[in-house]
Amino acid sequence: MGNFITFEGIEGCGKSTQIQLLGEWLVSIGKRVLMTREPGGTELGERIRTLLKDKCLDGHFSAKAELLLFEASRAQHMEKKIVPALTRGDDVLCDRFSDSSTVYQGAARKVPTSDVAFLNKFATNNLMPDLTIIVDITSEESVRRVLGRRGQIDRIEKENLSFFNDVRNGYLSIAKGDRRFLVVNGDQSVSDIQNEIRREYRARFM
Amino acid sequence: MGNFITFEGIEGCGKSTQIQLLGEWLVSIGKRVLMTREPGGTELGERIRTLLKDKCLDGHFSAKAELLLFEASRAQHMEKKIVPALTRGDDVLCDRFSDSSTVYQGAARKVPTSDVAFLNKFATNNLMPDLTIIVDITSEESVRRVLGRRGQIDRIEKENLSFFNDVRNGYLSIAKGDRRFLVVNGDQSVSDIQNEIRREYRARFM
Repeated sequence: MGNFITFEGIEGCGKSTQIQLLGEWLVSIGKRVLMTREPGGTELGERIRTLLKDKCLDGHFSAKAELLLFEASRAQHMEKKIVPALTRGDDVLCDRFSDSSTVYQGAARKVPTSDVAFLNKFATNNLMPDLTIIVDITSEESVRRVLGRRGQIDRIEKENLSFFNDVRNGYLSIAKGDRRFLVVNGDQSVSDIQNEIRREYRARFM
Repeated sequence: MGNFITFEGIEGCGKSTQIQLLGEWLVSIGKRVLMTREPGGTELGERIRTLLKDKCLDGHFSAKAELLLFEASRAQHMEKKIVPALTRGDDVLCDRFSDSSTVYQGAARKVPTSDVAFLNKFATNNLMPDLTIIVDITSEESVRRVLGRRGQIDRIEKENLSFFNDVRNGYLSIAKGDRRFLVVNGDQSVSDIQNEIRREYRARFM
C-alpha cells in the first residue's frame, strides 16, 4: 500500500503549492504519485465541484445538502481513484479530505459533529490518511491573501474572518494530540514549509 | 400543517398519473397543493437529477455516491420546498421520497439498511410522510410497460427483472404492518386506483 497524505488549511494557506512541490520531489526520488483534490478527483467529483461553486442555487444551499454533496464526491473518489492508487502502491497526495468536512461543515457551519463523523466514515469506509498536513495561517492572513492586498477589512470580509476563524480553530482542535497530524506554520517561506514536510515524510515513511 | 403524501413504486407503475389526478381533485375541492418529485423539486435537486441520469461517469457510480446524491437532493428539497409548504398549510404530493432510498439503494443495491436509515433521518430531520402510497405491479409488468410491449424478455431485461423484483419486494416488506403505507394494486384501471387513493385521503384527512 502507498502512503495516503492529505493537506488541509484555510483559504490562501498555500497547500496547493506545497502538494505540487512534494509531488515533484517524490517523483524525483522514484515514487509513483497520484495528486488529486476534493471536491473533485473523478468525473463525478468535478461535476459536483462545479455544482458546489454555484452556491446561489435556490437562494443558498442547505448546510446538510452541501455536506452530502462533498461526501458523494468523496465516496466516488475513494472507490474510483484513491483506493486503487494506494493498492497498486502509489502515494496519494490529496488537497482536502474528510477533515475539511469536519471543520467546514461541522465546526464552522454547525452540522452536528457526530453526523459529520458518521458521513465521513460512510464515504471513506473508515480509511484514514496516514498523515495529514495542516498548513496553518491566521484568518486575518487568509483574508489578506485571498483579497490579494493589505489594509482595512470591510463588513463582508469581517464575516469571512469570523468564519475562517471557526475553521482554523476547528483544525487546530482536531489536530491536538493526534499523531496523524502535522501542523506547519504557514507564515514561513515556501521552501521552509516544504522542507518541514519532506522531513516529516522521511521520518514517517522512509 | 398540510398533509404530506408520498408515492412509491417501481418503474412503470403509474404513480405520476395518480399524483396528477389526486392533485387536480384536491385543488377542485379547494386545497392548496404542491406537487413535486425526487430527485429534484429544487434548482439544486434538478441539477442533481441530471447528474444521476449520467450514470456512465467514471464507468459507473459507486452505490454510496449515488445514495449521497439522492440524500443531498432530499435535504435541499426538505428545507427549501417541502417544510415551507407544509408549514403554510399546503398539501404536498411527492413522487418518490426516502422510501425510494430504502428500497433502491438499500434492498436492491445492498447499501446496509442502517446506513440508509441514518441518511434518510439526517436529510429529512426525521420528518416522515403522513401517508405513503405504493402503486404495486409485478417486475414482469414493469419491464413490459417500460419497454412498451409484450413478449419475450432478453438477457439485459432479465437483469432488470431481478433488480425490479428486489425493489418490489423491498417495498412490500417495509409496508407490511406499517399504517403509514397504502399498497394499491397497480393492475387496476387508472380510475379504480385513483378512487382507492381518494377514499384513503378522505378517511385519513377529511
